[in-house]
Formats: sequence, C-alpha cells, structure tokens
Amino acid sequence: MVALVQIRLDEIKPLCMDILTTAGFGGPQAEAITEMLYTCQLDDCQSHGLFRLVMCVETMRAGKIDGSALPVVHRSEDAIVRADAQNGMSLLAVNEAMPDLIAKARKFGVAVMAVNNCFHFSALWPEVEALASEGLAAISMVPSHAWVAPAGGTRGALGTNPLAFSWPRQGQNPFSFDFATSGFARGEIELYLRAGKPLPEGVAIDKNGNPTTDPAAAMEGAMLTFGGHKGSALSIMIELMAGPLINDLTSIESMQAAEGRGGAPLHGQIIIAFNPTQLNGGTSKMNDARAEMLFAEILDQGARLPSQRRFAARKRNLARGYVEIPRSLLDELNNLNS
Amino acid sequence: MVALVQIRLDEIKPLCMDILTTAGFGGPQAEAITEMLYTCQLDDCQSHGLFRLVMCVETMRAGKIDGSALPVVHRSEDAIVRADAQNGMSLLAVNEAMPDLIAKARKFGVAVMAVNNCFHFSALWPEVEALASEGLAAISMVPSHAWVAPAGGTRGALGTNPLAFSWPRQGQNPFSFDFATSGFARGEIELYLRAGKPLPEGVAIDKNGNPTTDPAAAMEGAMLTFGGHKGSALSIMIELMAGPLINDLTSIESMQAAEGRGGAPLHGQIIIAFNPTQLNGGTSKMNDARAEMLFAEILDQGARLPSQRRFAARKRNLARGYVEIPRSLLDELNNLNS
Repeated sequence: MVALVQIRLDEIKPLCMDILTTAGFGGPQAEAITEMLYTCQLDDCQSHGLFRLVMCVETMRAGKIDGSALPVVHRSEDAIVRADAQNGMSLLAVNEAMPDLIAKARKFGVAVMAVNNCFHFSALWPEVEALASEGLAAISMVPSHAWVAPAGGTRGALGTNPLAFSWPRQGQNPFSFDFATSGFARGEIELYLRAGKPLPEGVAIDKNGNPTTDPAAAMEGAMLTFGGHKGSALSIMIELMAGPLINDLTSIESMQAAEGRGGAPLHGQIIIAFNPTQLNGGTSKMNDARAEMLFAEILDQGARLPSQRRFAARKRNLARGYVEIPRSLLDELNNLNS
Repeated sequence: MVALVQIRLDEIKPLCMDILTTAGFGGPQAEAITEMLYTCQLDDCQSHGLFRLVMCVETMRAGKIDGSALPVVHRSEDAIVRADAQNGMSLLAVNEAMPDLIAKARKFGVAVMAVNNCFHFSALWPEVEALASEGLAAISMVPSHAWVAPAGGTRGALGTNPLAFSWPRQGQNPFSFDFATSGFARGEIELYLRAGKPLPEGVAIDKNGNPTTDPAAAMEGAMLTFGGHKGSALSIMIELMAGPLINDLTSIESMQAAEGRGGAPLHGQIIIAFNPTQLNGGTSKMNDARAEMLFAEILDQGARLPSQRRFAARKRNLARGYVEIPRSLLDELNNLNS
C-alpha cells in the first residue's frame, strides 16, 4: 500500500513553479511545464504529473537544455507550422505554434505542426485534447531513446514511441488515447527490479537478444514493442514521421546525443490536426451520430473507452479540490530544492 | 502441399479483364481493378491478388455495386480532395483523385484524400507505395465489417481495419507496411475450420464473449484485435478517421448496409500524404541519412523490414516472367465465367 498525501489544487502550480525556477528554468518555460504537470496530475496521471518534476530538474542538471530558450515559430503560406524549441522543453514551442496549427487546419482541412530541437518529457494527450476542444481530430507522435528492439531484432533501435489520438465529442470529454508502442514502460521494468519480481513473458530481451523475464537482464538488454511485428512496424512509422520527416533525430541519434546523461531526451515532435468541415464536405458535424453509435455499442458491451478512468479522476479531483500523490514523491520533491 | 500452376505475366491482365467484364464491370472499373490485382499478384500477395476476382464477382452478384459508375472528384482550394466512387469499387475513384492528392501535398506539405461511397476489396499498400514513388510519405486506413470485438468487449463492433504506411527511399523499394488491426484475418479462421485445427489463444471469442480456440465458435463470435487494448484503440481510431471524419460508414453501418449479402463491403477510405520539403524546412531530403541509419541498424540485427519478402517476389517474378497461383484457384477462376 502506497502512502498518499493530499495536495490542494491551488498548491500545485506554485509548487511546480518554485521547483522549476529554482532549478534554472526561465519564467515562460516554467509556466508551460507547470500547466502540463497540473493538467496531468489533475487526471491522476501519476506517471506524467508531479513525478515528472524530478526528470525536469535532472534534465537541467544534465546541462544541455536551455531553460530560457524562446521558441521560434516559422510563418508560411502552406499547411505546415514549424516550431523550433531552440533546445528548450517542447511545451512552450507547442503552445506558441498551436494557434497557427488550429488556423491552418481550419483553412486547409488538415495541418501539421513540426516541433524541432526540443527536450521532451510530457504526455501527448493534453495537446491532442486541446485540439479536440477546438473541434479538430488530432494525432501526435514522438520518438525517445533507443531502448526498444524491432521485431526479430536483438537490441534497442526504437524509442518507446507513443501515439496519441483525440476525437471531439459534443458536450462530452473527447475520445482519446495515448500509448507507448513498447509493451512495457521502462519505469515498469524498474519497479519489477526493485520488487524482485520476474517480468511477464514477451516484454524484454537480454543483452544477447534472448527472451528474458529477469528485470535486471532486461535493463541491460532491450524492451520489445507491443503487438509483435505489427507494433514494431507502427513504432518504426513513428520514428520516421516524428524524426526524419521533420529532419529531427531518431531515437538512436537522440540517445547518442545524450551521451549517457539522464533527463528528458532531445528530439522532435509531430502533431497532425484534421478539420471535419472540409473532410466531410460540409454535410455533417464531426461529433456526429456515426461516431456516437460506435461509442455506445462499445460501452453497451461492458468495454471501456480509453481515458474513461482519467476523466473520472478529473471530475472527482475538481469536485474535492485536491489530488493525491505518494508521500515518497512529496518528500523527493521537497528535496529537489535543497 | 498446395499444387501450383504458372501464369505468364502477360496472361494476367487479359484473364482479369475477361472475368470482370463478363461479371458486369464496365471498362474503366475493370481496368482499375485489373491493375490492382496484377500489382498484388506480381508480389506473390496471394490473399489480395487473383484470388480477389472471386470477391469482385460476388460483389457484382450481390447486386448493390454499380460496375459502370464513374467517380466524381470534388475540386477545392484547400488541402483536401474528396472523391465520390458513386457506389463503384474504390480503385477508379482513388486513381482519378491521385493527381490532385499529389499536387496538393506538394503545394501544402500535407493533403488528404477522402473517398466516399466505395466498395472496397483491395490491399492498401499499392496506393501508399504509389505516393512513395512520388517522394511522399503516406498513410491509408479503411474500415470493413464489424467482425472484431473491442478490448474488453463481447461482440463484433470494429472492422479488420487495416493501416498502411509507405516511406520513399532513394533508389530502393520504399519502407512499407499494410496490416489488419485484427489479430487474425477472417480467412485464416476459415482455413483453421476447414483443417479442423484449434486456433491459437487470444485470437477470438465465441458468441457469448468468452475466449475460444474453436474456429467454428469463433466464426459465430468475433475476432480480437492484435495487441490488446492498444490495438483496440488503434482500430477505433481507424474507424473514426476513415468513417465519421469523412462522413462515411463505420464497420457496424457497413455490415448493416450489406444485409447479409456477400462480396466487398461498402464504406469510405482515407489517404494522407506528407511532403518532406515543407516539413523539414527545406534542409534535407526525405530519404535522408537519418532514416537509412535506422533501416541499416534494423537489418544489421538480423531483423527484417516489413514487405522485404514481397519485394523479393516481385524481382523474381519479373525476372522469370510468370507468377504461381494454386491450381484450385485457377479452376475456381475458370468456373467464374461459366
């Protein structure tokens, strides 16, 4: 049983700003990071909430990030908005380019944001959900570090490469998912290691490329993708779309660039936004009966839509005015400033 | 051992045209179908080559397709090209809209083709590879019929929902994949049924929603997606992107519209094309060193890139001037005209 402590909602942002600015982040980046952490923690997304303050501070201490960098958004007449994070965290660049992405998607029916030269630690769902709240469907992808072996391979070549999608629904939370294409998160393997428990089958290989259930051997080897060769193909697509397509780093290159330092990886990010108006010929709204019939059928079977638990947590936490985090995390956060 | 017969490459198209026009397809649709079947058979893609003539004829006999329909391509100033197949097969509509899609992708950096009101039987890789041959990266998705249960569900609600991707490589075959998001193809389950063999675990559920390895029970129940809840989420995304987003049918609606008739399903299709020039800021070519370094690393591990076997078959079949198909299929095709 993990001991939990309560943090009032109005305490979250000051706590984040204090830790981030003390660590060396300038005001604009610290504010963008704070908003992201608040959004995730409000939904009980423990892996990408306040816990990530630790990684943000580690990233600063690793000495490569520019916490005061101001992003440069390139203006163009086409359907692409390119945002250069200038070696800061991704979030400020995404925020600055977001109005352009929305305007371009509304004008052209589809638009793409390519974010370059960004350190990246955050969940993708808040960004695609921000687009859904504007009535757009959205997809986002990022690489990471080369911890994941391709199907049939023997060592890491792919990142954990998450894919996120969000779909607007009238008067309701969007249909959203955000999953890593690795079968397991790296942090999960660390938890098995600490607990001295064997991993499930099919999650990892050792340094010789052989299947292993030993978490220590897995940490020296590589993770596997979810879904066998299909998941592996999808992960390679994410590498290409969020890396070479936008002339930014693959997970292999990002890992090399880090030179063994900890903290968030440096790479690119791609976000694609779709406007229903042009795509459906103006004949119906995106959030129409067709999609709702599908959702209703899924729920009627007793299956869940992705993110339902998260939306329930948001509602509960907003109503009670506080979130709960592990006591050990609060202790760790209090030590970050010392 | 399946008995194979040889068919010379120059015999393939006349065979297809003869069967298709006899069945009732007009010249333009028959030619588009023939090109697709030739392309697939040349690569030894047995499931989507000449074998699909059977489904094309069944589709005509089911009485809902218009084999003489001429597609209508809507012109617009934005990055979307909408093609109405007018209840013909998808292929003629895709062909007619393809020049617009390519031109729009080159102009805007990204463009989308939305195909409506099409019967669909074909592999997706030839279309995304056609875009790759123009230097564009491309994604395509279609729904099908509601034979696949969502994760945690008890009955079919999703299609087999394939996802295809292609990435251009200089002087080489593209990086391509085209996979169903169902764990098994429906045809595979039929083969297990005929052979009296049990299915692997995790592929299907029976009509009560319980896991089954009995192929007969699976045919009355539903298939499962690949990759658990992640594959299920991906499949739902494909339903939404290739259905409601473009105001066309979900797999549930497509199955209802078929009223139990056989043949190809009626629904929509979405193809998204990305031009590297705008996305990388003009600083490098798409087929650049970053992507090639990733492919080289994957191959160096002894892993395969998707579609390698298909490209090898194409080279071999072009060199020897013939393809091989099962004798039983040739017999079946010869009977189609009688």
